[in-house]
This record gives sequence, structure tokens and C-alpha cells, in this order.
Amino acid sequence: MIERIAILGTGLLGTSVGLALRAAGYRGSIVGWNRSPEGAQTALDLGAIDSVATDPLQAARESQVTVLAVPIYATLEFMEKLAGVLGPDHLVTDVGSTKARISEAAKRLFNTPERAAFLPGHPMAGKERGGASLGDATLFRGAVWLFTDDPECRRSPHSAALVKEWREWVAAMGAKTIDLDPARHDELVAWVSHLPQFVATALSALLQEEVGDAPELKDVGGRALREMTRLGASPYSMWRDIAATNTEAIQAALHALEQRLAHLRENLRTPELRDEFEKANRFRRE
Amino acid sequence: MIERIAILGTGLLGTSVGLALRAAGYRGSIVGWNRSPEGAQTALDLGAIDSVATDPLQAARESQVTVLAVPIYATLEFMEKLAGVLGPDHLVTDVGSTKARISEAAKRLFNTPERAAFLPGHPMAGKERGGASLGDATLFRGAVWLFTDDPECRRSPHSAALVKEWREWVAAMGAKTIDLDPARHDELVAWVSHLPQFVATALSALLQEEVGDAPELKDVGGRALREMTRLGASPYSMWRDIAATNTEAIQAALHALEQRLAHLRENLRTPELRDEFEKANRFRRE
Repeated sequence: MIERIAILGTGLLGTSVGLALRAAGYRGSIVGWNRSPEGAQTALDLGAIDSVATDPLQAARESQVTVLAVPIYATLEFMEKLAGVLGPDHLVTDVGSTKARISEAAKRLFNTPERAAFLPGHPMAGKERGGASLGDATLFRGAVWLFTDDPECRRSPHSAALVKEWREWVAAMGAKTIDLDPARHDELVAWVSHLPQFVATALSALLQEEVGDAPELKDVGGRALREMTRLGASPYSMWRDIAATNTEAIQAALHALEQRLAHLRENLRTPELRDEFEKANRFRRE
Repeated sequence: MIERIAILGTGLLGTSVGLALRAAGYRGSIVGWNRSPEGAQTALDLGAIDSVATDPLQAARESQVTVLAVPIYATLEFMEKLAGVLGPDHLVTDVGSTKARISEAAKRLFNTPERAAFLPGHPMAGKERGGASLGDATLFRGAVWLFTDDPECRRSPHSAALVKEWREWVAAMGAKTIDLDPARHDELVAWVSHLPQFVATALSALLQEEVGDAPELKDVGGRALREMTRLGASPYSMWRDIAATNTEAIQAALHALEQRLAHLRENLRTPELRDEFEKANRFRRE
């Protein structure tokens, strides 16, 4: 049923979706668009897409499924534009890291009898650096792919079939799907994804000031330090939109961690330290 | 010159030292002692040691080099006992994670004409779980091995030769050696080793409370969360002594990170966020 897919944004995720679809046996055509032509060319060279579109809206119109793989505000802009040019035969989905704003826009702009269906999605996979050249057919293998869909996206038999088929392709890419409501999604990812990122950023920035002038001393930290700061390489361009669209939940998580660190700091020589280590041990065991 | 080595404590590090010495071509004998006989037996079974000692002081007396591979307070206790039973023909070294207390004890108890030499050492290698069974001949390959020695440990030609030969074995195990003074050592590792550990512990303990009752949600965090909490599995038994012997430096590092996280939290929607990401990016690039 899905014979043509448009991937708007061929960065790391968009390119990986194209490569993973091919690896999963998808035989239809895949058209790609990217803000910078170089990224689209790289995705084409890697075989993630078959052709490069110059007009993203036309590429979407000519496909059954459009995958938005751009930062969140760019996703919201595309949603405004696509709502007016696509009809009920189309399905639009995305890979954005926060879902409340996108699900709200989907409710307002899609999922009516005259409009396209919209399925909000969020693959929990990535790398600390972006770009088409890092695209990876195995990126989603074993990863969780979250959905926060409104049942209205399956209101017609046609849209229900499109949604079902897209979910099957996601499973074929190796991902495990979990359904959440948008508010719960944003709260959960604030803890398990956004908090770890902002901690790595703060730790890396702090260490840059403390030991950045003596690069040989970074080696001293070994594997543990490398792992704890790997996400420090993550790009602001992507995280700006996440911080702006999930601010309250991230603030709550950061504040809770600040308090936790203060508690540790005040108890380095008391039995409370044992309790914290044991609680941390449990998190890793279960 | 070094024909017999005693390893007191055949946990992860002690066992790995034995295995790495063998892999590097050491042909002398290695005697091991461990508080729990099972750990010594495992080290023996793995070939990390040739024989198990029941009396650690006697094992040290019968060896040219004694490696203390036990937690810091146990190291300090052994130093008190060994100082009285070893003579100037012996070298004692250790693998403890803080060095001010140990270097101070070395100055007080060793490195005189009648006493053994003491070379304080600290290999920056480990795993988040301990025990002889995880011993690894390659653990020190590419790792930094810090020394905080007092020139007095080389006061006689004999002790100078022992120190030189032990340093050569450390290099042969694949480690890169760096010399620091003890106070600088403890300050540096507070930033690049102890801070990352306590952050991982606090983050893991916090997440255990927030999402610990829904284990399937841990998968949502993917590789990034696994990496950021891997050290959450580290044992209290080892970190208690580190926290107690480097308290002020760790407190300063934790306090600085708390302030950094608060700064991020207050700037999730301001251009300051870009500065933090760029500083973090620089840490990973350099």
C-alpha cells in the first residue's frame, strides 16, 4: 500500500530511516529533501533515498507517507504547510523528541475527514553527532520507538491501514514500539533522555573550564569519563527545540538532581552514602 | 631483579595486575592473598597468581615487590603492619584511588635507610563491578597509571632499581605513566574520576525512585541512559573510602556541578544554553 515515502530532513535520523527501510525489505521509492543540498546528496549516495526533491511539499504530495525528520520547530512549521496541501490519502509522521506540542498541532491541523492523518512518533535512538554521513541501517535495532497517537488518525479505513503498515515497517526496522499519551511521554523522556543529556552537557562544560587547558589530563579519566561526557558532543541546534518545548519537565528533573547531588555532598562521610549507592545499584540490577 | 611479587587483594585490580604481568612476559613467581579465600582461588584458577598465601605479611616478606590492591583504609592498615616487617630490600606499591593519605603514611612509615621503599600508584582503570572473576589482562592497556612518589623512595641504588623495574612492568602492561604530587592528584581525580562517579550514582538513585517501578521504561532511555548510569553499579565498599579520604575536593566538584545544573535549568530558553552546549562540544573535540 505504501509505494512512495518522502523523508523531509536527511540528517542522521532521516538517513537512518531510509537505510533501515531498505534493510527491512521496503521496495517502494523513497524521495528525500534536506535544507542543505549536501545532506540530501550524501543520503542519495548512501542509498537511503532514490531521488532528491527540491520542493518538499510536492514530494510529500506525491507520497503516501511523509516522515518529518527535522528539529521540532521545523517539524511544527512543516505541519502547518503540509496540512493545507495533503489530503485524506496521506499519512504524516515525525521523529521529534518532545510530543506535547506536536500532538497538539496534529489535533488542530490533521486527522479530520478532509485532512491527512498524523501519527506522532519518537525513535529513542541517535548518536552524539548528527549528519547524513553517520546514517546507519541498524540504528533502530533493539531501540524503543514511542508513539503518542490520537485514535482520530485511524478514523478512515484507509488511514487506519496506512498507520498499521507504517507501524509494521517500524517493527521491521528492529524497533520495539510503546504507546504513551503525549503528556506522559514528555514527562518520561525528561527523566530518561533529556536529564542525562543536560547532565552530560553541564559536566562537559564544567570540565572544559577545569581541565580543558591540559588535554593530557582528560586521558586520566579513562573510559568512565569518556562515557559520562560522550553526549557533551550533542548539537545545540537539536537540543534548543527540546529545551524550549519541554521546559517545565526538564526543569523539574534538573532541580531534583541538583538536590540529590547536594544530598550526596553533605553525606560523603555518613551512612546515607551507602543508601545512595545501594539505590543506584538497584537501578542497574533491575 | 624482581623475582617474586606479592599481590595483597586479588579483586578486579589485583587479579588484573597478575594477569597483565604474565601477558607482559613476567616470569617470576606471583603469590596472592585475599580476605575471602574464594577470591584468591579464582585468581589462582585464572593464572593471575601461582600460589595462595594464608599470611599476607609473610608473603610480602618473601617477595621483592608487594602490590596493595585493597580499599584505601585497608591499604593504610597494611602499610602500618608492613613497615615493621619489611626491610630496605623491599618495594611496596599500591593502586588506591586517593593519594594524599597514602603518600603521607608512606613518608611516615617507609623510605628511610632501614625501611622498605613505597611507591604510591593509581591505575586509572576499572570496571563498574569488582571481583577476581572479572580480572582482565588488558585492563591497563591504553590507561593512565598515576604515580605520586617521593624521591626518597629511590634513596638507595637498590630501591631506585626496584622502582625503575616496577615502572617498566607498568609500562609493559600497556599503561601510560604520569607523575603528580599527591595534593594535585587528589584534586585532579576529584574532577575527572570521582565527580563522574558520584553523578552517575545520584542520577541512578534518582531514576530508581522515578521510574524504578516500571522497568520497561528504562529501555526507553537507550544507549545514552545506559552509559550515563553504568557507573551506578559501582560498589559502596570501594567508594566509601574514596569519599572519606578526598572529601573536600569531591565536595567542591559536586558543588560546582550543582551550580552548573542550576544555571542550565534557569537558561533552558535563553542564549546561555548555546554557550553551555558549545563549551561542552569543545571538551569533546579537544
